[in-house]
Amino acid sequence: MGKSAAIIGGGVIGGGWAARFLLMGWDVRVFDPDPEAQRKIGEVIDNARRSLPGLSDVALPDEGVLSFHETMSEAVAGVTWIQESVPERLELKRKVYQTLQVHCSADAIIGSSTSGFKPSELQVCATRPEQIVVTHPFNPVYLLPLIELVPTDANAPEMIARAKDILTEIGMFPLHVRAEIDAHIADRFLEAVWREALWLIKDGIATTEEIDNAIRYGFGLRWAQMGLFETYRIAGGEAGMRHFIEQFGPCLSWPWTKLMDVPELTDELIDQVADQSDAQSGHMTIRELERARDNNLVTILRGLKAQDFGAGALLNAQDKRIGDPVEMPTDPSARVVTVRRAVPLDWTDYNGHMNEARYLQAFGDATDRLMEIVGCDADYIASGGSYFTAETHIRHLDEVHAGSKIHIETQVLMGEGKKMHLFHTMYEGARELATGEHMLIHVSLETRKASEPATQIATALAILADAHAALPTPAGAGKAIGVK
Amino acid sequence: MGKSAAIIGGGVIGGGWAARFLLMGWDVRVFDPDPEAQRKIGEVIDNARRSLPGLSDVALPDEGVLSFHETMSEAVAGVTWIQESVPERLELKRKVYQTLQVHCSADAIIGSSTSGFKPSELQVCATRPEQIVVTHPFNPVYLLPLIELVPTDANAPEMIARAKDILTEIGMFPLHVRAEIDAHIADRFLEAVWREALWLIKDGIATTEEIDNAIRYGFGLRWAQMGLFETYRIAGGEAGMRHFIEQFGPCLSWPWTKLMDVPELTDELIDQVADQSDAQSGHMTIRELERARDNNLVTILRGLKAQDFGAGALLNAQDKRIGDPVEMPTDPSARVVTVRRAVPLDWTDYNGHMNEARYLQAFGDATDRLMEIVGCDADYIASGGSYFTAETHIRHLDEVHAGSKIHIETQVLMGEGKKMHLFHTMYEGARELATGEHMLIHVSLETRKASEPATQIATALAILADAHAALPTPAGAGKAIGVK
Repeated sequence: MGKSAAIIGGGVIGGGWAARFLLMGWDVRVFDPDPEAQRKIGEVIDNARRSLPGLSDVALPDEGVLSFHETMSEAVAGVTWIQESVPERLELKRKVYQTLQVHCSADAIIGSSTSGFKPSELQVCATRPEQIVVTHPFNPVYLLPLIELVPTDANAPEMIARAKDILTEIGMFPLHVRAEIDAHIADRFLEAVWREALWLIKDGIATTEEIDNAIRYGFGLRWAQMGLFETYRIAGGEAGMRHFIEQFGPCLSWPWTKLMDVPELTDELIDQVADQSDAQSGHMTIRELERARDNNLVTILRGLKAQDFGAGALLNAQDKRIGDPVEMPTDPSARVVTVRRAVPLDWTDYNGHMNEARYLQAFGDATDRLMEIVGCDADYIASGGSYFTAETHIRHLDEVHAGSKIHIETQVLMGEGKKMHLFHTMYEGARELATGEHMLIHVSLETRKASEPATQIATALAILADAHAALPTPAGAGKAIGVK
Repeated sequence: MGKSAAIIGGGVIGGGWAARFLLMGWDVRVFDPDPEAQRKIGEVIDNARRSLPGLSDVALPDEGVLSFHETMSEAVAGVTWIQESVPERLELKRKVYQTLQVHCSADAIIGSSTSGFKPSELQVCATRPEQIVVTHPFNPVYLLPLIELVPTDANAPEMIARAKDILTEIGMFPLHVRAEIDAHIADRFLEAVWREALWLIKDGIATTEEIDNAIRYGFGLRWAQMGLFETYRIAGGEAGMRHFIEQFGPCLSWPWTKLMDVPELTDELIDQVADQSDAQSGHMTIRELERARDNNLVTILRGLKAQDFGAGALLNAQDKRIGDPVEMPTDPSARVVTVRRAVPLDWTDYNGHMNEARYLQAFGDATDRLMEIVGCDADYIASGGSYFTAETHIRHLDEVHAGSKIHIETQVLMGEGKKMHLFHTMYEGARELATGEHMLIHVSLETRKASEPATQIATALAILADAHAALPTPAGAGKAIGVK
C-alpha cells in the first residue's frame, strides 16, 4: 500500500499541496467544504501536471489516487501527513485540529499552511500539540520549493526530522525556522516591500507596473538565484561582506524608506492599486497569467538546474534520489532504457511541438547515460577521458508535446577501440517518435585528440555491443538523408 | 566617426557602464583617479565580454575603442554621454560637475549613478543644470537592464527622450521615475528588506544563509519574471487585484515587521553578518561567485527570452533592432548567411565546449531564418503553414567555446514541391566547426500532414535553389554516418 496524505481545505494552496503529493506517488484524500472545491483543486492539479513533471530529467513515480471526502474524519483516516490550509482564523484552525485529532493517527504529522501564526499559538488547546507544526508554502506550491518548517519545543526532534524527510521526498525544501515569530521569515520581507510599494502608489511616485519593472528588470533577477546576502557579498568585492556592510550601513538611518508609518488602506488607495493593475495586466486573464508564470518558472528552474545552482541544485538532488540506478543491465541482450522523462514545458516551439534541438538534447542525455553505465561517469571525465560526438543522424517520425512521457531505448551498434556507435529510438508509449544514430570518439580531454578508453570501459562496452549484435539492425541505421 | 561616452570614476559600476557602451560599439573614454582603475575596470569588462554578447541571438556591433585619460577635461572632450559614478558625497559630485561642464559639450548628457541623491540636489550649483540627470544602474551593470532615469523640471523633454533612446540602444531599460524621492524606487525596497534582514540576524531568528534560501527558493523566483503586483494579481484569482488587496490589507497593521525601529549597526552585528556570510559562501572566491552569478543570469535571461517575457522580451526587442534585415539576398548565387552570433555561456557542457544539442539549436535558427527569408515568417505560420524537419545529419568538425563568434552559411540543395533540402555550415571566422544537412517538409498546421507551400514561398525558394545549383556540392552532403 502506498503512502497517503490528507488535504484539509485551502483551494489554491490546498490544491498545490495535493498536486505535490499526488505527482510524487502519494494517495491524496481531500476534505474541503467549499462546494466548488473539486473544480478549483482540479484546476490547480492540472496546472501542476502541465508544469511539474518536466522539471525532472527522470520519470516521476506513478501518480497516486485522488479522492474527495465528505467529512474530515473520513479524509484523515490512516494518512501519514495532514496539511491544514483553512482560512487564517486562529479559533477556526484550533477547532479543526480538535476534530481531526479525534480521527487521525497519533503518528501522523499535521502541517499548517499558516503564513502568520506561530506554531505555539496553533498547538494551544490541541489534544496532542506535539503532532502540529507550521509548514508554510509559497504559491504556486507545485513549483516553488520553499517550505518554512516552524516547530516548537513540543515537537520531538524525531518528528521534525521525519517531516523534513517527507517534504524533501515530495520535492520541497524545508527551511527549518529555529525560533518562532509572527509571519516566520519570508513574509516579513514581503510585508516590508508591500508596505513600501503602497506608499509609492499612494504618494503618486510610481504605478504598479513601474514597481514591477523596478523589481523584475533589476534585483529580482539577482534574488532568483542568490538571495540578498550572497549578492551583497559580491558587491563588497575582494574586501568581502564586512566591507560592504560598513559601507552600506549608514544608509539605514537615512530617510530612504517610510518605515515609521503605515499607509491607511482607504477605498481610494484600493482603487488606485486595482486600476493600475488592470491597466498593467488586464490584457491577460488570470489563467493566462498563471500559465505564463509557470512557463517562466519552469524555464528559470531548468536553467538553474543546468548550472546546478540554487533551486536548480535542489532539483538535481531530487533526480538523483528518484532516478533509475546507473548499472549494467542484468540482461545485456536487450536494448538499454537510457531516458525516461516528461517533455518539459519549455521544449515546445512555434510549431506547437517539441523543438528539433530538444530531440538531440534528449538523445544526448541518452548517450550520457549509456556512457555512465559503461563507466564513463563524472569521476572518469574528471580524470581526463570522455567521448565526443562526431556525427549524428536524426529521423523525425512523429510529433510529441509538452507533458508527454517519453523514453529512449539504446542499441550499441559498435563499441571498439576509440569508436562508439549508438542507435537511440525515442517513444511515447509504443509510438515511435524519432531515431538518433550517433558516432562518438573517445578523446583525451587534455590533448583534445582521439585516444583509447580505459580498459574497464572498453570491456563493458564490448559486452553490450556483442549482446546487441544479435538484435535486428534498426530501420534507418547507416542511411543518408532522403534514403529509405 | 562612432559615438563616444566618458566614464567618470566608479570601479565596478563605472566598469559596467564602460562595458555596456563598448560592447554596443561606442568608444569609451575613462577617467578614474584610482591607481588600480585600469585593472579593476578591465576585469569588469572581461566579465562582460564573457557573458553579454551571447545574450543576443544576433551579432553585436564591433567593439568600440577603450581609452584611459589622465584628466576629466581630456576624457569628456567631444563625447555624447558622460556617466558619473564617483563616491556618494554630494559636495564631491557637485565639484565634478563644475569641472566637467567647463570641458564637455553643452549637448552631452551627464548621467549620475547615484543610488540615493535626488537630481535636484545634483543640479544645484551646476553651470548647466539642464544637462544633469540621475541614471541609476544595478550591479552587474553589464547584465541587468534596469536604469532608474530621474529627471527634474530643469531637464527638457527632448533631452529626456534622447537619454532614453541612448540607454535603450545600449541594451538597458530606462524606467522613467516621474517624481524625485530619496533613493528613487528600487532601493526603497532593498532598504526595507535589508533592515528587516538585519533584525532577523540580530534577534537570532535566521542566518544569512537561511535568509537567502527563504528568498531564492520562494518569492525570488516569482520576482525575477513578474515583480510584486502581477504576482499578487494571480493570487487574487478570478476575483482579481481588488479581492487580493482587501484580503491582504489588514495584515499591514499586524506586528509582522519591525517597522517602527532601526537596528543599531554595532560591531557585534557586523561580526555576526560577516561570519555567517563566510560560513555560507566562503568556499567560493568573489571571482567564482561573480561567474556563478553571471552564468545564472545568462541562463535566466535566455530562458525568459525564449518565453518573450519580462527582461527576455527586452532582449528580443534589442535583437530586432540590431539584427540583419530579413530579405532575399541581392546576389542569390552565394550561400546565405543565416546566423551571426556569439556562443552563450550556458551552451557549454561537461566536456568544456558547446553541447551537441546547441549545434542543432543554431542550425535550427539558421533554418528558421531561411524560412523567414523565403516568406515563411510568423504571419505565414499563424495562417496555418510551416515546415517540419524530417531528417538531420550533423558532422562535428571542430570544437567551439562560450564567447566565440560563430556564423552559419546556408546552401539550398533542393526546394521543390513540399520539400526543402538545406545544407548549413558553421564557422568561427574561417574555421569550419560543423555541418548540418536537413530535409524539411511543408505541412498544414491544421491537418499536421504534408502540403504544398504558398506560391510566393515556392517561388522564392526556387530562386535560391536554382542559383545555388551552380555551387559545388558540399563535402558530407548525402552521406551516411561513418561514410567519407
